[in-house]
Amino acid sequence: MQSDLWLEEKYKNFIGYRYKIKNTLFSGKSEFQSVDVVETEGLGKMLLNDGLVMVTEKDEFVYHDMITHVPMFTHPNPENVLIIGGGDGGTAREVLRHKSVKKCVMVEIDKMVVDACKEHISQTSKDLNHPKLELIIDDGLEYVKNTSLKFDVILIDSTDPIGPAAPLFNSAFYKNIKKCLSTNGIVVSQGESVFFESHMQQVLLGILGEHFSKVSIYNYSNLTYPGGLWSFTYASEVLDPIKNFDETRISASNLKFNYYNEQIHRAAFALPSFMREKVQHLLKN
Amino acid sequence: MQSDLWLEEKYKNFIGYRYKIKNTLFSGKSEFQSVDVVETEGLGKMLLNDGLVMVTEKDEFVYHDMITHVPMFTHPNPENVLIIGGGDGGTAREVLRHKSVKKCVMVEIDKMVVDACKEHISQTSKDLNHPKLELIIDDGLEYVKNTSLKFDVILIDSTDPIGPAAPLFNSAFYKNIKKCLSTNGIVVSQGESVFFESHMQQVLLGILGEHFSKVSIYNYSNLTYPGGLWSFTYASEVLDPIKNFDETRISASNLKFNYYNEQIHRAAFALPSFMREKVQHLLKN
Repeated sequence: MQSDLWLEEKYKNFIGYRYKIKNTLFSGKSEFQSVDVVETEGLGKMLLNDGLVMVTEKDEFVYHDMITHVPMFTHPNPENVLIIGGGDGGTAREVLRHKSVKKCVMVEIDKMVVDACKEHISQTSKDLNHPKLELIIDDGLEYVKNTSLKFDVILIDSTDPIGPAAPLFNSAFYKNIKKCLSTNGIVVSQGESVFFESHMQQVLLGILGEHFSKVSIYNYSNLTYPGGLWSFTYASEVLDPIKNFDETRISASNLKFNYYNEQIHRAAFALPSFMREKVQHLLKN
Repeated sequence: MQSDLWLEEKYKNFIGYRYKIKNTLFSGKSEFQSVDVVETEGLGKMLLNDGLVMVTEKDEFVYHDMITHVPMFTHPNPENVLIIGGGDGGTAREVLRHKSVKKCVMVEIDKMVVDACKEHISQTSKDLNHPKLELIIDDGLEYVKNTSLKFDVILIDSTDPIGPAAPLFNSAFYKNIKKCLSTNGIVVSQGESVFFESHMQQVLLGILGEHFSKVSIYNYSNLTYPGGLWSFTYASEVLDPIKNFDETRISASNLKFNYYNEQIHRAAFALPSFMREKVQHLLKN
């Protein structure tokens, strides 16, 4: 008899997402959260933090393309990039594909996530030893408070505002982020579920509006996040993600992306009416 | 003790979508399929055909906005509209909001779906007795073969190509659809899952390309369809959904939509790279 093992992620106590599992590759409990890597049937390897799906091999390209390439192709010459979180390595992998990048600093709070992905999910973690990458195991909050470095692009690749990422949804944090950005720097942050977390989106956009002159939000469709349609927020003092986007830089880069392209860049900022109504007063351009 | 009743839709035998249920409002078995209406926790009432989620009160606006308003605002003056399927009534409801419409014919094969929605889901079925609507319980395949009427917009609001809708994914059917379209008519069809059903999308686009000079596909994000990102195909002899789209007609209509707007209309045709690669050779504009 074949085993019939399923994993379930419950959402808001009325939806459950179940995935058929071949076997468990890693299960640990760090100082911050539980960390599991499983081999699924149909979606490849899957990383879970506190039982929530973070990454699957099948759809991680969507999230990593969209957190990375929207700001990296809006900024005319991103040389220094900071990633807060992103322990699976997928965001660093995409950042490091850009030839303009001289240095990428990645500050991940949970070493167990990095180690588990290094051992079991090479698809995302393969560039975590890249010579241009400085990987720091530390609290991103402390890092941006203390560093004197300036970055062209900062990517807040965080989990939800529960658990270790909660302090990242906070005004004091973004005050420090602004301090760490170069003049025309851009910060992009994981922006939660469109259908289910409008309130959290509004809170985050409000915080960004306290500190930045350009504030936007853009969407992407993920297979394994509750509700499918999720967002990233975008903020900058100078650069507008549509007006300052020069699509010829994509073809000039010779890079190919599985999700992102010049049409998707613009289309991602088109918001469904129900979302636009709730956030439009918080956007700045 | 409170009851803890969950319903599950399995997809491809490796994903399960579970919804918490308050109670069952209707359960029947028609000549064509099983038909259930349940009251969910969190998503309102839900219609299922053969155990697959068709409609929930929470997200039906996404599907119904996008099947209807993209062609209705591309055609300059849609007066006669044909809906094949759409037994829940949501598509007819949206079509009938357009003042230009003189007559809407809806051909649904399964009377049990119509009756169950009329009794239990007034949100979608409320206009099924509208004076401009002619509701015919019949096989859409036979209807388009036999009718001599011409339509400006035809909407194929069908289930998946298994069960009663299977013959709708077929060249002979679209040959008859073309016969039923006015000179600058448009046909839009339920176009399946982007992440999981690329082959079926390619088959459908290939069939459309046999009969029409303009063939496109556009996307929308649904809460309760597997994978979230789903498509509609678009075909016409004359009208291009981007070049012939005049967004001033939306504001002139005084209609407000929960999902659709002038930005979403254009953005929906921006395809993720992995999808564009697979379908681009089948598109015609």
